[in-house]
Amino acid sequence: MPIPDSLTPGKYRRLKRLSDSNDRFSMLAIDQRGSLRRMFARKDGTDPSEVAPEQLRQVKRVVTRAVAPMASGLLTDPLYGYPASMDLLPASNGVLLSGEETGYVGTSEGERRSRLLEEWSPARMVREGADALKLLIYHHPDASEETCRHEQNIVASVGEACEEAGLPLILEVVTYPLGEAADDAALQARKKPDLVIDAAETFSDPRYQVDVLKLEFPANLKYVEEYQDAAFAKGTAVYDRAAVEQACARLDQAAGVPWVILSSGVGMDEFVETLKFANGAGASGFLCGRAVWKDVVDYAPDEDAMTRFMEEVGKPRVERLLEANTTARAWTEHPAYQDVGERVFARE
Amino acid sequence: MPIPDSLTPGKYRRLKRLSDSNDRFSMLAIDQRGSLRRMFARKDGTDPSEVAPEQLRQVKRVVTRAVAPMASGLLTDPLYGYPASMDLLPASNGVLLSGEETGYVGTSEGERRSRLLEEWSPARMVREGADALKLLIYHHPDASEETCRHEQNIVASVGEACEEAGLPLILEVVTYPLGEAADDAALQARKKPDLVIDAAETFSDPRYQVDVLKLEFPANLKYVEEYQDAAFAKGTAVYDRAAVEQACARLDQAAGVPWVILSSGVGMDEFVETLKFANGAGASGFLCGRAVWKDVVDYAPDEDAMTRFMEEVGKPRVERLLEANTTARAWTEHPAYQDVGERVFARE
Repeated sequence: MPIPDSLTPGKYRRLKRLSDSNDRFSMLAIDQRGSLRRMFARKDGTDPSEVAPEQLRQVKRVVTRAVAPMASGLLTDPLYGYPASMDLLPASNGVLLSGEETGYVGTSEGERRSRLLEEWSPARMVREGADALKLLIYHHPDASEETCRHEQNIVASVGEACEEAGLPLILEVVTYPLGEAADDAALQARKKPDLVIDAAETFSDPRYQVDVLKLEFPANLKYVEEYQDAAFAKGTAVYDRAAVEQACARLDQAAGVPWVILSSGVGMDEFVETLKFANGAGASGFLCGRAVWKDVVDYAPDEDAMTRFMEEVGKPRVERLLEANTTARAWTEHPAYQDVGERVFARE
Repeated sequence: MPIPDSLTPGKYRRLKRLSDSNDRFSMLAIDQRGSLRRMFARKDGTDPSEVAPEQLRQVKRVVTRAVAPMASGLLTDPLYGYPASMDLLPASNGVLLSGEETGYVGTSEGERRSRLLEEWSPARMVREGADALKLLIYHHPDASEETCRHEQNIVASVGEACEEAGLPLILEVVTYPLGEAADDAALQARKKPDLVIDAAETFSDPRYQVDVLKLEFPANLKYVEEYQDAAFAKGTAVYDRAAVEQACARLDQAAGVPWVILSSGVGMDEFVETLKFANGAGASGFLCGRAVWKDVVDYAPDEDAMTRFMEEVGKPRVERLLEANTTARAWTEHPAYQDVGERVFARE
């Protein structure tokens, strides 16, 4: 059969819909809730809790209208974005819905634990027309066993429910600093490669049934020697370009499934560079959020001005990403889908 | 909200995927099982039961490969066609799966009763990536109450399960002759308009939760005065062009939901004419099967010859249908979706 046994028909069709005609992922995210509230609060000098749902909906609609047709998939949240943007989401492209509550529960040791949006099961998402579930979890190999198990159990249960529902699971693993690194950005940069690689390795275990890993870039370009002339540079180098390439290669080795790069809120120039590194090492594209649209909040609630910003700045940013994505590896060509010496996927 | 309350998000996204960018249905069918077996049996002088599944699969693959990318939706069967054609079905277009067993159970009075493919529930179809369930039932207003209720119960139960699963229900209602009409083709032609209109009226009842009606043409062009010069004419006219137009207008009035025209195995010239009449009266396009591909069986199992036939004859036939479909009504503009004086659908 031309599609691999390890992939159900439902997952196969939905993964194809989430990727472009070359099986590359060019996905955009507007599922932010907490961070979007904080952007508004910063701008208006108010508390995040005072931001009205209508403000979130307006940003989500303006961004979705502008960029959804350019992306192979759009990630939005099931609470505000999806119901408010139904008419703006091309049915031929993929829709991803976030499966976690915004934010995390912090422990007294600074560890992070995710919570599920319990009322949004994978089965419900499929019924309501989604093409993937994006689950964000936190990872640190030195976290307590209780915290690690908490995150792992969430992934395993969602993975099983997604498998049953025919819904691809896109797992976003966010690492974070613990201990002395918490207040030392340069030290965090140095530790980043190992953290991200450990995250990829941990959740590539088949028992989690992850279809695509959404990973941080395994280095911080702000601290790379050859980038110290860039506007985003921090003035201190902790590694060089060759080390970054090596980290990306190790990450690709560690990822047992197709993987994409996330933007972590960095600026566009920096993100485009990380995307080139990642795709060069075997990534299958990107899932990018704030780097494309974050300044749109400055123009709210003037919808004309917001729309103009997306036309003049947001869309050209997406164009840059699409250009840098031509070197991404087709997800169907990931080693996970290569049979012994034979192509599992028919490409007609 | 820009999508109507009567339509769940899942049904909305899937209906959009089943239709083209103008919300018109240009759907092709290769879900035949019994009739395809009979074509092979006729050609080879064997019994339909002797036709091998591999013969069915080959035809389904060749036809799907050629025409699926041209159609807004492709109807195939879940037993042979869907698993065999997974890699040939564009994920951006719709896939419809048939929900009934091939054929029907005939009663001693010549009445027809459908049977469901029990193992293919709407929930399973959604899981496995389908965008609609096509259910074929039989209708004659003079059938016994038991037969009528049998068909109605099937539709109501599938309608409810589709609603729960977020899966559009495309209901194909096929009428048939009873009593003296059984052996009199001209009499059947005369009775056709009322039969098809009654079928549309009956199954437009909201309790069936049908999303799109797949209907026979409500007249037989072979018996229309103005078509007696056509190759397909029967040499006897039972009505004229104006009566056909009137029947189509009455059918549109009777259909409480968007409707498309089926091809009943007529030839391409005749089907294109019926499509023009139907679209002129308010149909939202077609769901056409054998008229496009039936002769391909003559070339089996020579796959090169079959493919050549589809390239040289099959595809140009689809082009003709697409041309005749530019006058179809957008399904989103059907009266069922028009609010009091206001457009329910946002078209951006």
